[in-house]
Order: sequence, then structure tokens, then C-alpha cells
Amino acid sequence: MKNPEVKIVGAGLIGTSLGLALARQSIVATLEDQSKANLRLAVEYGAGVENGPEPDLVIVCVPPDLTADLVIEQLKKHPRAIVTDVASVKSKVSQDVEKALPEQAHRYIGSHPMAGREKGGPAAARADLFFARPWIVSPSANSTQVSVDLIRDVALRLGALPVELSPTEHDQTVALVSHLPQLVASLLANRLNLGTAEQLGLAGQGLRDTSRIAASDPELWVQIISQNSDSIAPLLVKLQDDLAQRTQAVSEIEQPGSLAKIHGLLQGGNSGVARIPGKHGGKSTNYQVVTVVIEDAPGALASLLTFIGEIGVNLEDLNLEHSPGAPIGLVELQVVPEVATKLSEQLVTNGWRLV
Amino acid sequence: MKNPEVKIVGAGLIGTSLGLALARQSIVATLEDQSKANLRLAVEYGAGVENGPEPDLVIVCVPPDLTADLVIEQLKKHPRAIVTDVASVKSKVSQDVEKALPEQAHRYIGSHPMAGREKGGPAAARADLFFARPWIVSPSANSTQVSVDLIRDVALRLGALPVELSPTEHDQTVALVSHLPQLVASLLANRLNLGTAEQLGLAGQGLRDTSRIAASDPELWVQIISQNSDSIAPLLVKLQDDLAQRTQAVSEIEQPGSLAKIHGLLQGGNSGVARIPGKHGGKSTNYQVVTVVIEDAPGALASLLTFIGEIGVNLEDLNLEHSPGAPIGLVELQVVPEVATKLSEQLVTNGWRLV
Repeated sequence: MKNPEVKIVGAGLIGTSLGLALARQSIVATLEDQSKANLRLAVEYGAGVENGPEPDLVIVCVPPDLTADLVIEQLKKHPRAIVTDVASVKSKVSQDVEKALPEQAHRYIGSHPMAGREKGGPAAARADLFFARPWIVSPSANSTQVSVDLIRDVALRLGALPVELSPTEHDQTVALVSHLPQLVASLLANRLNLGTAEQLGLAGQGLRDTSRIAASDPELWVQIISQNSDSIAPLLVKLQDDLAQRTQAVSEIEQPGSLAKIHGLLQGGNSGVARIPGKHGGKSTNYQVVTVVIEDAPGALASLLTFIGEIGVNLEDLNLEHSPGAPIGLVELQVVPEVATKLSEQLVTNGWRLV
Repeated sequence: MKNPEVKIVGAGLIGTSLGLALARQSIVATLEDQSKANLRLAVEYGAGVENGPEPDLVIVCVPPDLTADLVIEQLKKHPRAIVTDVASVKSKVSQDVEKALPEQAHRYIGSHPMAGREKGGPAAARADLFFARPWIVSPSANSTQVSVDLIRDVALRLGALPVELSPTEHDQTVALVSHLPQLVASLLANRLNLGTAEQLGLAGQGLRDTSRIAASDPELWVQIISQNSDSIAPLLVKLQDDLAQRTQAVSEIEQPGSLAKIHGLLQGGNSGVARIPGKHGGKSTNYQVVTVVIEDAPGALASLLTFIGEIGVNLEDLNLEHSPGAPIGLVELQVVPEVATKLSEQLVTNGWRLV
């Protein structure tokens, strides 16, 4: 496919990152932003130029509330271009475009690169923001295959992993894996307003992780949640039912069945979290762990790894446990089940000690 | 203060870590554990010895349900020793000890080093587990000042930060900063059981962080929550009220006031999370990260590890990022700063690609 002429509307985190990533692919995007400062910074960064040729593709990268209007505007302004957006809710935009511009809506295709950072603005942009991240391509009923192919191609060229979902499937998915966690983190963090400074001074990593995304931008998120309320509301109702049951159990801890209800929640949490695939999606393979004892001395791990390389075993993951001061360390080797026995045997035969 | 003779009952994660940390202070602890395997591993690790002198201090490091009984047993067994524990709920143990052994209870002092890992057992132990972590010292009405001073001294020598709180203050604090987050993470993760594999495949870092601690041990946590139900229940009731309000707003998004209610929650989350003070010291080790691009093919990692072994570089940690479908994977190598440059140079010279 020849390089498309790309125009990016909105030079914030996502728009500028897109421009930077496209530049690495020798595509010089035309940038547009209401904020002269954002635009200038993005251009200086190398994310694109201010005035370019008539675009083949327009990518609208503005907050969710403005997305539909700007998509409509761009469809009108560039009558031959395919127009997409990057908003994190898809049904609403798609419906608004269809309603406002039915005869042009086939040139619109929704998309959602699932990448971001806690910081916004062009200064936080990164060319590798989309690398190895899912990129949802979300065709509406009228979207053309050529639009789908174009977005997939762009996503692949930026190192992202295109996934096709209808607007409804998309919105239900992000309601569960993104919008519900946001609300839960905010609900937890909201409780902290009632704690004393001394209490909060004793916060550990668990609280920090569980509440981290509560620091997200309320203006952005109120738009996201209101646009996806249809998919989020049923999840909140179920959460409410679950919480009510467990609260009763904790409040009446001596009642028969209370401990089982709490245990059930904790176990349900175990199985739920185990369903999240390994880092950056995918692998649900069950690796087998072989744990080796090594001296906590320089060269010991290297020598183990060299040995494993020599016997031709491919490690899927490796985890070190060594406590400074302890004379030994433990190495957890994760391998596919088929080679676990061979690995263990060869290690033992060659004098390595397993746990 | 002269070195106390210390006995540790329970050679799990906390007990073994304590033994390792004490060993660095030239205190050889006597270890005891019902499990011969745990005990042997802890001794081999260097956490202490099996038979030692009569203790000045006994530290009971067993699950919460067993803590009171073992504290009582140790108070009887060692009539001159001060006995403490490390359980994460303090009122219940203190009351049980007071009730069972009123004439000896002045020798008991509660404590709670706020440190842990997701993995348990002696193999996960680390000498620096307590470093820069709060260590609650929790005297009951009858505890003596000499006990308080002894625990503070031990905590300080292990690099921990002693904080004095009454059992009630302690339990209310951990209900907010530890037990509520655990239940919230479990409630969120429990919702994931209803998602499809495709949906969960699109999980990002936000969901991972928010639900991480839902992987905690249900057996341990049902004990913690049931022992601290008095402090947790009121927090859950408030959470329930808050959730009910916000669920209604999301369900009736078009009603006046709904957006303000959602915005209020998000803003409350912002202010709550901002109240958590910055990391307390944390791990002091500063490793440098060298990131290598490898093909996502069998043998690629082994070949990298073999090469690193050959050039004699000792890895401190290693982290794999590989995304199914992506043609490459990323290997983050953590090394001491002194060898980072050598490692990078040698990798590049030998044809490895760095990020």
C-alpha cells in the first residue's frame, strides 16, 4: 500500500504520539489543533507539519465530547478522505455521525488505540506509545472494507495489534476492562478522604496499586462514562449486589455462612484475576516452574543460564529470588510442560540443586 | 542494648525474612516450624539455627488464626521472655492473650511489620523485606515499656520505621489502608469471571494494577477480615452508600445532576489518592535496565542468556515482555550500574538490538 496522506486533528498525547510514530514510517502528517501552543510543540517535536496536502486519512484525536462533531466536520471538509477517531467509546460517535451525515457515514470508521499515559498533552507524547498495544478497529454497519483495511494497515505499521470489534462489542469490553476499574478505583480512593494523615501514612503498595488510576482526569472520564453508561450501568448493579452480600457477611461475622461468603469473594477474586492473560495480552499457557538453588555469587546465574542454553531448553520466563546477605539464591525457571522433566533431569545430573 | 536471644516461631515468608535480617545484625535466631521442609530451607538460607539458647524475645510468625494460641504457648514455655507476634490484626490477639493468661499478658506486646510479598513461604524470604517499611508496635493496657522499647529497637535495627498505635487504632488503620483495598480488588476481580476471554485479552495496566492484590491467599485473608470485621464493616457500609448513589447516576445519565454525581466521585478519587504520601523509601537498590529486542521464537531468549553468561555479566533481574502475534519480544535486563555500559556495548557489538 502506498503511504497515505494523513491529517491529525488534535495534537494532544495521542495525536502527537501518532504523528511521531507515523514520522518513523516516513509519513509526515498534517497537524491541526485549536491550541497554537500544542500545535507548535507537536511540530517542533517532529510529529508533523502545519500545512500539508489534501488527506487520504483524517484521524480525530480530541476528547470524547468533541469527537463526533469534529468527525462530522472533517467528513464535510475532506470529501474523499476516510475519517477515523481514537475515542474510548465507539457506539455514541458512530450513531451521531450516522444521524448527522447519513450519506457520508460510510467514510467514517471508529478506532481505539488502547494506549495512554497518566500525563496528557504533546509533551508526554511517545513514538512507541502504540507498540504491542491492542488497537480496536470498529466498523459500523455502513463502514467500507477499504476503511477497515486502511486502519489495520496503519495500526500494524505503528507496531500495534489490530483487533476488530463492533461498536457495541467494543463498548461492552471497555466497560468491563477499563471503565469499571476506573470507577472502582475512584470509589476506593474516595474513602481515603475520611482517613487521617497518620492512617494514610501507613499505606502500602496494595493500596497504591488499587487506587492508582483514581488520579485520572475527571473531565475526560465524566465524558467517557456518560457516553458508555448503557454498558457500565449493568456492571455497577452487579457490583452493588455482590458488595451488599459481602457487607452483610462482614457485619454479621458470627452468623453461619458469613465466613464462606467472604471466602467465596476472595476466591472469586483469585479466579477473576487469573483470567487476565499474561503481560500485554495473550498466552494462557500453563508453564511449569523448575526452581534451582544457586550460590548468591557473581557468575552463578550466568553459569546456570549458559547451561540451559547449551541443553537447548527455551525459557518462557525467569524469576530471581535473592536476598542480599543470604548465601544462596533461588531461580524460578518457567518452561512449557513438555520440557520440564528433561530440564529437571539434566540439571540434577549436572550437579544443580532443585527445590 | 546487648543483642537479645531471639526465637522465631514459624519459618514462612515473614519468619524467615526476620531471621535473615537479624543474621545481618549478628543475631542468630532459633527457628521453629511444624513443617520440617520449611525449617530446613530457612536454616539453609541462613535465617537461623534449629536449637538455640533460652530466648529473651519470641516472635510468633504464624497465620492470624493460630497467632493467639501460639503466643499463649510461648508465654508459658519461656517464662522470662517477651513475646510478640506479626499478625495483621491486633485487638483480637491481645484480648485472647489477656483472657487466657492474665498474669502473664504484660510480657506480650503486639507488633505488625507492614511488609509482605504476594508469594509466601521461606523460599520467598528476603533480608531487606522490612527495610523502610512501617513496623507497628501495639502495646495493650498491660504491656510494659521495656517490651515496647525492645520491639522498637529490633525494628530500627532491621531498617524498619517503628510507629506506636494502640490495638484499636492499628485495626482501624489497616481496615482502611489494607483490608478495604483487598476487598475492593476482590470485588472488581470477581466481576471478571463474567467476561469473555476476548474481553479480558484487552485488559490494560489499569485493570492489572487495580485488581493485582485480588490474587492474595483466600485462607489467610478470610482470617484477617473475620478478625477485623468490627473495623471493616462500617467502611463497607459507606462504600455501599457511595456506590448506590453513583450507580443511580450512571443508570439515569440523562437526569439532571447525574453528571455532577459522577464528576464528584472522580474528583473525590483524585483528592483521596493525592492524600497517600509518596513512597516510603522502598527498595534502595538501583539497578540499571538494559532492554534488548529479541525475535519471539524458540531459542531466542536462551541464546541471549547464553551470551550474557559468556561475557560474565551477572543479572540482578530479568523481565520478559512478549505479546502474542507480535514478531518480537522485549527482554529487560537489570544489572548493577557498573556493568550496564559494558553489557550494552557487548550486546550491540555482537549484533543484539537494544531499545
